Amino acid sequence: MQEDFELKEKYIPQLSKPAYLLVSLPDAGLVGSIAGEFLINHLDLKEYGEIYSHKYLPPISHVIGGLAKSPLRLYHSNNLILLHSWVAIPANTLYPLARFIVNYAEKYGIETIISVTGVPVPNRLDLDKPTPYWITNSEDFAKELDELNLMKKFDEGYIAGPYATILIESSKKSIRNFVIVVESFLDLPDPEASAVALEIISKIIGFKVDTTSLLKEAEEIRGKIKGLMQQTKQEIPNYAGLKPFTYA
Amino acid sequence: MQEDFELKEKYIPQLSKPAYLLVSLPDAGLVGSIAGEFLINHLDLKEYGEIYSHKYLPPISHVIGGLAKSPLRLYHSNNLILLHSWVAIPANTLYPLARFIVNYAEKYGIETIISVTGVPVPNRLDLDKPTPYWITNSEDFAKELDELNLMKKFDEGYIAGPYATILIESSKKSIRNFVIVVESFLDLPDPEASAVALEIISKIIGFKVDTTSLLKEAEEIRGKIKGLMQQTKQEIPNYAGLKPFTYA
Amino acid sequence: MQEDFELKEKYIPQLSKPAYLLVSLPDAGLVGSIAGEFLINHLDLKEYGEIYSHKYLPPISHVIGGLAKSPLRLYHSNNLILLHSWVAIPANTLYPLARFIVNYAEKYGIETIISVTGVPVPNRLDLDKPTPYWITNSEDFAKELDELNLMKKFDEGYIAGPYATILIESSKKSIRNFVIVVESFLDLPDPEASAVALEIISKIIGFKVDTTSLLKEAEEIRGKIKGLMQQTKQEIPNYAGLKPFTYA
Amino acid sequence: MQEDFELKEKYIPQLSKPAYLLVSLPDAGLVGSIAGEFLINHLDLKEYGEIYSHKYLPPISHVIGGLAKSPLRLYHSNNLILLHSWVAIPANTLYPLARFIVNYAEKYGIETIISVTGVPVPNRLDLDKPTPYWITNSEDFAKELDELNLMKKFDEGYIAGPYATILIESSKKSIRNFVIVVESFLDLPDPEASAVALEIISKIIGFKVDTTSLLKEAEEIRGKIKGLMQQTKQEIPNYAGLKPFTYA
Amino acid sequence: MQEDFELKEKYIPQLSKPAYLLVSLPDAGLVGSIAGEFLINHLDLKEYGEIYSHKYLPPISHVIGGLAKSPLRLYHSNNLILLHSWVAIPANTLYPLARFIVNYAEKYGIETIISVTGVPVPNRLDLDKPTPYWITNSEDFAKELDELNLMKKFDEGYIAGPYATILIESSKKSIRNFVIVVESFLDLPDPEASAVALEIISKIIGFKVDTTSLLKEAEEIRGKIKGLMQQTKQEIPNYAGLKPFTYA
Repeated sequence: MQEDFELKEKYIPQLSKPAYLLVSLPDAGLVGSIAGEFLINHLDLKEYGEIYSHKYLPPISHVIGGLAKSPLRLYHSNNLILLHSWVAIPANTLYPLARFIVNYAEKYGIETIISVTGVPVPNRLDLDKPTPYWITNSEDFAKELDELNLMKKFDEGYIAGPYATILIESSKKSIRNFVIVVESFLDLPDPEASAVALEIISKIIGFKVDTTSLLKEAEEIRGKIKGLMQQTKQEIPNYAGLKPFTYA
Repeated sequence: MQEDFELKEKYIPQLSKPAYLLVSLPDAGLVGSIAGEFLINHLDLKEYGEIYSHKYLPPISHVIGGLAKSPLRLYHSNNLILLHSWVAIPANTLYPLARFIVNYAEKYGIETIISVTGVPVPNRLDLDKPTPYWITNSEDFAKELDELNLMKKFDEGYIAGPYATILIESSKKSIRNFVIVVESFLDLPDPEASAVALEIISKIIGFKVDTTSLLKEAEEIRGKIKGLMQQTKQEIPNYAGLKPFTYA
Repeated sequence: MQEDFELKEKYIPQLSKPAYLLVSLPDAGLVGSIAGEFLINHLDLKEYGEIYSHKYLPPISHVIGGLAKSPLRLYHSNNLILLHSWVAIPANTLYPLARFIVNYAEKYGIETIISVTGVPVPNRLDLDKPTPYWITNSEDFAKELDELNLMKKFDEGYIAGPYATILIESSKKSIRNFVIVVESFLDLPDPEASAVALEIISKIIGFKVDTTSLLKEAEEIRGKIKGLMQQTKQEIPNYAGLKPFTYA
Repeated sequence: MQEDFELKEKYIPQLSKPAYLLVSLPDAGLVGSIAGEFLINHLDLKEYGEIYSHKYLPPISHVIGGLAKSPLRLYHSNNLILLHSWVAIPANTLYPLARFIVNYAEKYGIETIISVTGVPVPNRLDLDKPTPYWITNSEDFAKELDELNLMKKFDEGYIAGPYATILIESSKKSIRNFVIVVESFLDLPDPEASAVALEIISKIIGFKVDTTSLLKEAEEIRGKIKGLMQQTKQEIPNYAGLKPFTYA
Repeated sequence: MQEDFELKEKYIPQLSKPAYLLVSLPDAGLVGSIAGEFLINHLDLKEYGEIYSHKYLPPISHVIGGLAKSPLRLYHSNNLILLHSWVAIPANTLYPLARFIVNYAEKYGIETIISVTGVPVPNRLDLDKPTPYWITNSEDFAKELDELNLMKKFDEGYIAGPYATILIESSKKSIRNFVIVVESFLDLPDPEASAVALEIISKIIGFKVDTTSLLKEAEEIRGKIKGLMQQTKQEIPNYAGLKPFTYA
């Protein structure tokens, strides 16, 4: 575990049960990234860890308040760990990072890993409110998600990229994982889709969050996160093995 | 065997003899892919296994009914195992996958491996019914196939790609393998060619299958499988070592 | 330490405390390179070492007075070591070189590593005097820098390239490191920005330096260092993993 | 020897002395390939072996009479082994294949390795009968070839590709090797040049062969071997290290 | 030493002292190559060795009088060894070849390694006689060269490519090495520059050589060596790490 990735934790957070791990990595529409950053700022999450890797992360530091930090950081509340990346994940990093994440979840007794991403739809502009879908790696959990009725079932298709590898790796360790897939733009940051995902997460994990600011500041967010979108846009085609791929 | 590929089986199917392994991987005209998917849906095959590989498969999951699964899966009936891929096989995966497949066949006492592919012909549009050919790795089996008279002999030429490597590897283990090569389009999905292959397989293995729906729904199938065709179209030139190659 | 890089030192300099290591590698605007070369010529630094690497440095020698030397050399005064590169650093060299530098600093009891670079700003031409910012890897040192009030705090953004990896590696060894980031051109050598950095360094380390010649000879310096700028301009995009990236 | 290449022999041919190994691999004008295939068909050579390699040969099978075989095969008469390739040899395969071939020759007590290739000449079309040259790796044999007076001496120039590496490797093992280099087209199959080479080989090894059919069927041969020519044409520039090179 | 390069020597030449090693590898203007070939033909040097490498040399043989030889060969007179290459040296070969050369020099008790190359100057056509410069790796030898006054001192700049790596490696072994750098064309063979270098070498080593033929046959030499020039022209940019670089 320490070989490919190095972990630096200020302390070990004590989580109440059931404990969740939310993973927000840049992908289509930055739906997960925007949701992750919103929670960091509005849910009073505590930053407690950084993840380093010579082998799998580019030579980039994220700077905040003059302090240089790893772009891959860990935050927590009382029953939630958030693993958030401030840079796009290179394609060859996907499998080892997924393995790291799932090992980390196991170490902390996490019961459910939640991921958030977008599924690009051509008519995104015409949608009043984008529809959320779920994908999971567990048949039992699939029944629960069906009954919860917060999202539609993702019926048939493919999922490629960082969340696909986490689904695969967590399945091997029998940790349940589900992905909230919200209809979104492909290469425009999509705060509205993030807001839809955040409402679902808040109901499942049990916290209150007011996403109206997300919708109000959509334009501003798009501007601020433009560089990350550009990076991500270039990486996404690599996730499917350098080949175009159609979802759903 | 577990090193490069990881195998996850719900149970070990008990097969009556003679036992067959049918391999359906994306190749010219998706002739094998369409045939494989048709059998999954119409022959009541039971899904019992998944094949994973960090090293040799792209970071993609196939989603069905909300459940994320490996795109390389195992199905069976009472005397048949079907190994079906829902994604195109990268060129550098061909040899290790062939070795995995042949080792798997050996472990399950498979007597005959059957593969299905297309041979692109320029006048495909003018053909009433595409002609099937056989290629095998065994002189004895060649005589049987000649006598069976269900297909023409593939007289002289080359076969490149996933089915070539399975022919090579099974030959080393003295497992007989034959490829049904049906005249087809190169980069248009060709359900008619798949229907021709399915009729031959049904006679050899001994089951009944009505392929009329394949022909009726040809247009619909082509649309649904477009993404896979695009992937495969990009991978095929790599199968011959990045060089153009003429068949037959 | 000797594996990837070979060190050739004429003698071991004895430094008075507190001891500093200044690192000047080619990056945006060559702000660090010009500052480093200026100190070599005007602060009477003694050249005492060369760094070689088959694996990580290109097959280039820097020639001075007919003598071929490594392009990566070591200089010192009574409380300062300067590690200066006369060639651009290839992207795959960044992590191992950073590790080498930090190990070297540890060996010599260095308390503070100082780096100098530019942050490209579009309106550079309109600036009377470019603004300097600081980035550091230590919370305690951040407070000191805030109080010193010689530079502004780099509030939020990214730093990619050689100075990012030194920030990461020195943080692991608990050696404090700060980067002076001066507003600059991206791919025009920027002696004015170097002069701003030199004034700050002189106040921190405690030496006197008259940078007026830097400003007078700006045109001449730009011409002389053109080849290095061209090299560096081609390497910078690689620092962020071959992807464009926006600073600040 | 078994590591990189796998050898499958039906039996071990007993050769009368002196024994020859003729190597026919695709190169300029396919002069060797056409000569090799002609001997297989007209000299009643017996096929007895196949050479496989995951690492060094592309995933291609050569099919003949419905049977899939390795594209690198072994044939023999009473004093001759023919190693013939039905596919172009990738550039990175040249050295290991040469070593394999020379080890194989040593194992079978071969005294002379003969290779056949073309040297492209711009005025090929104007030549009544292309001139053959010899290149060898042995000073003693050079004298014999001079006295034989069947070919001109290749006076000064370069030879790149598969036959160069066999010259190098056989020299190390003190097995004599000569290359018949016939003036030819570069990227048009050249049966006339092959006929010239075959006449020389027949005199040296001691068999009778009527090459008139080669000349009569030149057009037909060119059509049949077009795919191989295309492959080879793409590989030849790689033989000289991706750089253009002038012969003679 | 035998790992990466294989050495084949007919005998071990006994050299009188002081002994020199002259290295002539293709570089700018082929200044060293033309000088080396001239000495082979006009100084009655004896060919006694060949250097092979699967890993570092392309699959090319140099043919002379029908005999295939390694393109990297060894010649000697009574106090001089000449290591001459008949092909361009690939960029990734530079470091290991330099190490081989320096080890070889050490084994034979060589006191001075001499290299010859060109420095491209834009006004080459206008020069009556191109100026020679020296670069060395030894401070002591620098003084001697200054006093000798046969060449100007190369004051400041860079040297990239094969001669840079020999300077670096011989410095580590404390073998003195100097490079004669003559003003030359970049990608036109430059026999006039070679003549300038030969006059200097003859004075230093102590032999007589009449270079008038070099100047008379300049046009002929340029034609003959055109292929090597083309190869070299393509390799030179790689010597500086695929980046353009300005000398002096």
